[in-house]
Amino acid sequence: MPGIAFGRFDDSFSLASIKAYVAEFISTMLFVFAGVGSAIAYNKLAPGAALDPAGLVAVAIAHAFALFVAVSVGANISGGHVNPAVTFGLAVGGHITMLTGIFYCIAQLLGSITACLVLSIVTGGFAIPTHGLDARIGAFQGLVMEIIITFALVYTVYATAIDPKKGSVGTVAPIAIGFIVGANILAAGPFSGGSMNPARSFGPAVASGDYTGNWVYWIGPLIGGGLAGVVYNNVFMHEDHAPLSSDF
Amino acid sequence: MPGIAFGRFDDSFSLASIKAYVAEFISTMLFVFAGVGSAIAYNKLAPGAALDPAGLVAVAIAHAFALFVAVSVGANISGGHVNPAVTFGLAVGGHITMLTGIFYCIAQLLGSITACLVLSIVTGGFAIPTHGLDARIGAFQGLVMEIIITFALVYTVYATAIDPKKGSVGTVAPIAIGFIVGANILAAGPFSGGSMNPARSFGPAVASGDYTGNWVYWIGPLIGGGLAGVVYNNVFMHEDHAPLSSDF
Amino acid sequence: MPGIAFGRFDDSFSLASIKAYVAEFISTMLFVFAGVGSAIAYNKLAPGAALDPAGLVAVAIAHAFALFVAVSVGANISGGHVNPAVTFGLAVGGHITMLTGIFYCIAQLLGSITACLVLSIVTGGFAIPTHGLDARIGAFQGLVMEIIITFALVYTVYATAIDPKKGSVGTVAPIAIGFIVGANILAAGPFSGGSMNPARSFGPAVASGDYTGNWVYWIGPLIGGGLAGVVYNNVFMHEDHAPLSSDF
Amino acid sequence: MPGIAFGRFDDSFSLASIKAYVAEFISTMLFVFAGVGSAIAYNKLAPGAALDPAGLVAVAIAHAFALFVAVSVGANISGGHVNPAVTFGLAVGGHITMLTGIFYCIAQLLGSITACLVLSIVTGGFAIPTHGLDARIGAFQGLVMEIIITFALVYTVYATAIDPKKGSVGTVAPIAIGFIVGANILAAGPFSGGSMNPARSFGPAVASGDYTGNWVYWIGPLIGGGLAGVVYNNVFMHEDHAPLSSDF
Repeated sequence: MPGIAFGRFDDSFSLASIKAYVAEFISTMLFVFAGVGSAIAYNKLAPGAALDPAGLVAVAIAHAFALFVAVSVGANISGGHVNPAVTFGLAVGGHITMLTGIFYCIAQLLGSITACLVLSIVTGGFAIPTHGLDARIGAFQGLVMEIIITFALVYTVYATAIDPKKGSVGTVAPIAIGFIVGANILAAGPFSGGSMNPARSFGPAVASGDYTGNWVYWIGPLIGGGLAGVVYNNVFMHEDHAPLSSDF
Repeated sequence: MPGIAFGRFDDSFSLASIKAYVAEFISTMLFVFAGVGSAIAYNKLAPGAALDPAGLVAVAIAHAFALFVAVSVGANISGGHVNPAVTFGLAVGGHITMLTGIFYCIAQLLGSITACLVLSIVTGGFAIPTHGLDARIGAFQGLVMEIIITFALVYTVYATAIDPKKGSVGTVAPIAIGFIVGANILAAGPFSGGSMNPARSFGPAVASGDYTGNWVYWIGPLIGGGLAGVVYNNVFMHEDHAPLSSDF
Repeated sequence: MPGIAFGRFDDSFSLASIKAYVAEFISTMLFVFAGVGSAIAYNKLAPGAALDPAGLVAVAIAHAFALFVAVSVGANISGGHVNPAVTFGLAVGGHITMLTGIFYCIAQLLGSITACLVLSIVTGGFAIPTHGLDARIGAFQGLVMEIIITFALVYTVYATAIDPKKGSVGTVAPIAIGFIVGANILAAGPFSGGSMNPARSFGPAVASGDYTGNWVYWIGPLIGGGLAGVVYNNVFMHEDHAPLSSDF
Repeated sequence: MPGIAFGRFDDSFSLASIKAYVAEFISTMLFVFAGVGSAIAYNKLAPGAALDPAGLVAVAIAHAFALFVAVSVGANISGGHVNPAVTFGLAVGGHITMLTGIFYCIAQLLGSITACLVLSIVTGGFAIPTHGLDARIGAFQGLVMEIIITFALVYTVYATAIDPKKGSVGTVAPIAIGFIVGANILAAGPFSGGSMNPARSFGPAVASGDYTGNWVYWIGPLIGGGLAGVVYNNVFMHEDHAPLSSDF
């Protein structure tokens, strides 16, 4: 396992790097536009109503489909992180330098903020819904939930897209990455909000000016993503044996 | 990046070209039949009711699944555009000549009109629902929304199906193209209608005789698709370097 | 294009052929169990209620997912037809002999009947819902609808699984085949029932003893499937040129 | 067909084996967290209400997406069983030794229990919903239902992931495995619960202390999975002929 690398300035400003930042900006903007847009659409179709199961399905599918696509379109340019927790989880395993990773995160945050600002204009002034914890759970519980579901996401990124053993699973990696987010929103949405992504949560906070509880969606995903990087790299990476069920 | 090419008449009338037009006609007809059909089905199941979240999910999934299939079945004959905005976005990047592109668009429009006329017969006279802006947003807002979501669609076409760097992402390209439309309908459906496709909007307008606001679904998607072509071709195409995260 | 072939008896009774019949029996049984089961589940969850949009989504997704799997598991043994209309459409193009095809259809019908009889036991005596036309449309309209949507299905089978030009689209062929059925159910379900498959319709008719209108689900799908076979084979098969958009 | 093998202790304690147990633990934990979490989420959004069609869709999609991902991330380490019925079905065909299989099952059970205990904390004390039979059906009916749907699942594992003839179907194997579970939940959920997986059912029983009827979800899936192993291995494995429709 390569260690964490700070990186060199000239690497982070190469033409390839700058194209990667643009790709992250665009991918994150398109993902957040569809994801946050689907939450606004629910508020439009069911004005004043609390989220119901059909609305949760709509929001989960929008995020699953849009993240799958956002990862796909970025995969061969920037790696398709679309998420500071993914970038951090990969930096922990030495798959991107810390310096380049910071620029990735800035691009992702700008993409998310742009998407939310545009949404507030084109939807005719609908409030941009922010992530927040359900009244019944506390900060610790919300934090643990975000840690676990982000662990699932970044572990999926490692196993399906980074691990050299991935084989044909690599072909469906972007779908797996999008769909684990969809599944986790169906579980965590009504409790912690189901963010798994500081950029996804920060854009709406900026657009609405409401930063209440936003720290949960930084600390939780970064811990979960970092933990997945540590676990996957130390336990499963660089195995020199064939898989146990060799014919599976 | 190859420039925009007008094209030669004999190329546009080769046997291969004519088969491509037939393929575009059939793909678009099947896509519109399922897509518009799902909107009519909602009106059948919930007579007189406004769209609700479950109905939005039904319509979005029908479009996502049907477009994925329509692109798949056309992919190796015509490229599977199924959409004048995609054809225009590809012409802007020199991936199809303007002349052949015009015949593509005609085939797509005829496919959509055919689907809608048949639908109005086989559903027993249900009105064919047309795309229209929500009362709360203006033409400018609807236009911007259609520009952004069509940008997402055509950018996805470029990144997953056209770019020679696409690698194994190419295998899931038709799914990505279908699913970005599904995700965007879940966000934009209740506001701009979520068309992204002049043919998808024009067929219902012809079948119902109601062209109100139809221009929005020409101007918006063509600007969004053209913009995606310009951006993707100039920023990401013909890169001569390996992706930044080379192991991703 | 190879012509329609009647076939030889010893070919149809080879060990490979008999395994193929078993595979078709199992695939169709599993598909119909999930598909018809989802319709019974709706009647269980919403007793006495007419189908609503959420129920239509449930039924469409169950059919889409289950057919995708049924085609996948049969693909390398029997070809994964799971449907007499697909078998007929392939026989029309000479891709299976008429004689072997008849045994395929018998296996499919027995699989569907078995699934429905078992369902009527394990659900505790729920009525097995049969396909039928909505009161608002006539037999001609229902027939045309089934023709069009089955044409879409068998055209998809040809373009993604049979055509030697299929390339990497072949990898997602079973998903495309399942999802076009899901999309078409979302459109046609409330009108013609959205069968596309005589076996899917015949099993419930046998289990319930109600054959009213069952002929529609034989004539419609067989015409639609045969038509797709004729069109695809004559227009698109055996092209000796590269696809038009060669880089798509 | 290789016979059932008991296995050697040192094989089951190799480094590769231990990594496989860790992978099964993590995959099952992530699958159960999303799956059971989605059932709790429904109880949160619709307090006190019986399951409705939209809720069934939410739960089915959460399980389908999460199982697809859980299989994908484990595929190249442990084979991605995530289910004692799959492990048993593979042991019956000689694809894993009984001894190693027992450790797989222990890891799966611990993963499920962990997920459910964590869920009961982070959701703020919501009851963990257990699988149970609908009042209208008896134990025999529930058992048969679980046998059939688990047969479908393990048959899918064999045909898409184990069979050397699988070809390009292997690329979509994890999706097929996840989606057959989603389809079967849409059919069986309101009757038998639609478990197909002793670990999925046992975790909630432990976390809630309610073991009523839990035996059904051991006996049914193990019989169904074992049966699939016997049938697939004896009928379809090690065929030495090309598929019947050789061009399909």
